[in-house]
Amino acid sequence: MPTFQFLPFSALLGTLGFLCVVFTGFWSHHWRGGFAWDGSAKMFNWHPVFMVTGMLVLYGAAVLVYRVPSSWVGQKLPWKLLHAALTLTAFVLVVLGLVAVFGFHNATGTPNMYSLHSWLGLTAVLFFSCQWLMGFAAFLLPWSPAWLRIIYKPIHVFFGSTILALAMAASISGINEKLFFSLTNKTVPYARLPPEAWFANFLGMLILVFGLLVLWALATPAWKRPESESLEARQPLLH
Amino acid sequence: MPTFQFLPFSALLGTLGFLCVVFTGFWSHHWRGGFAWDGSAKMFNWHPVFMVTGMLVLYGAAVLVYRVPSSWVGQKLPWKLLHAALTLTAFVLVVLGLVAVFGFHNATGTPNMYSLHSWLGLTAVLFFSCQWLMGFAAFLLPWSPAWLRIIYKPIHVFFGSTILALAMAASISGINEKLFFSLTNKTVPYARLPPEAWFANFLGMLILVFGLLVLWALATPAWKRPESESLEARQPLLH
Repeated sequence: MPTFQFLPFSALLGTLGFLCVVFTGFWSHHWRGGFAWDGSAKMFNWHPVFMVTGMLVLYGAAVLVYRVPSSWVGQKLPWKLLHAALTLTAFVLVVLGLVAVFGFHNATGTPNMYSLHSWLGLTAVLFFSCQWLMGFAAFLLPWSPAWLRIIYKPIHVFFGSTILALAMAASISGINEKLFFSLTNKTVPYARLPPEAWFANFLGMLILVFGLLVLWALATPAWKRPESESLEARQPLLH
Repeated sequence: MPTFQFLPFSALLGTLGFLCVVFTGFWSHHWRGGFAWDGSAKMFNWHPVFMVTGMLVLYGAAVLVYRVPSSWVGQKLPWKLLHAALTLTAFVLVVLGLVAVFGFHNATGTPNMYSLHSWLGLTAVLFFSCQWLMGFAAFLLPWSPAWLRIIYKPIHVFFGSTILALAMAASISGINEKLFFSLTNKTVPYARLPPEAWFANFLGMLILVFGLLVLWALATPAWKRPESESLEARQPLLH
């Protein structure tokens, strides 16, 4: 695979991730009435911001922790803890994102969990929860046996990419759905591509580019942490 | 990674893929008025059927060709040709799927290419076109140089999975969008989950399961074709 320098590449990813968050916030602020925590549509507006920030951008940063070249030397434990802390923070944001949408639905009498977007999104969140708990149990608990970590690691790695792909699909279907809900003005419907539609479609494509580049970085062999066969590497590190 | 037997696993995939196609057809036939090729909504109904059959199920079969154990021995050329033929057939179905939706839009005066679903779907189709052409040029043309194939192969493999993930996201956002369009009956809207909504949401989750299992099969190390370092393997095979 053609190999770029990891650090400039991650600076590009950081910039794109930052733009994803800023654009999501700008969309909610500029076109959807801004933010509140009161059961109104302004409470819903936190939903895309928390989800894009947590499940996509922070999650994207967390999965790339072991691709930082300086993580390959010395103790692995600090990097494990950083990975666990970033994914846990991402998870907290995801929970807040769920609270925002359920709170809005409940306050306005809208049914929960009916659209395919919601089914897909909840699937992604459930996978993410299992992934975090099993990662914690297998890689951080001191009594986790070596055979468990050896068997589980490739599964954890596979679902690391898979959950990001699910989050991308959930974000894109959510933006699409929100635009059909919101752009109902008969003179300028979604189909006539008013500025908000251009902007949010562009945001969706930006999320796609960001996610694909993270998946690319994960798949690049030269950026993978060299496997150490030493005893240290095969033992739980919270001893 | 835990390894199952490939052939029973691919029988399961075949069954799931068959169900994806049948369910998509049943949805269009039973709830959306059936099929025609006349610019009406019945012409649109071919769109999901062609896309799910081509871009997802046939594509999924095509990417797994090199995972069939009997493809690992003997000549590689017949398997390359099978892979190229399956992906080309998938591509033809995808083009028909595009004709179905553009034909419907043009006949009814609906703008084309405005929703994020359409942007994502077209991105997937463009990636797929490039992937096919570059795969043909690099791996089947006799004058393709060895260095090109060595450099390009991991890129082709990465985009093989990526395009499937894009197709899954496009299918799911498309089903979601179609349900919001169609289930506009005020007494039983999408939000009240009438039988059609249950059915099509279930279809979306079935597509998700099928796609994830194909990605899993692609990622399973024990199912990958062992790399041969012989000169034969490094030369174009249409000499």
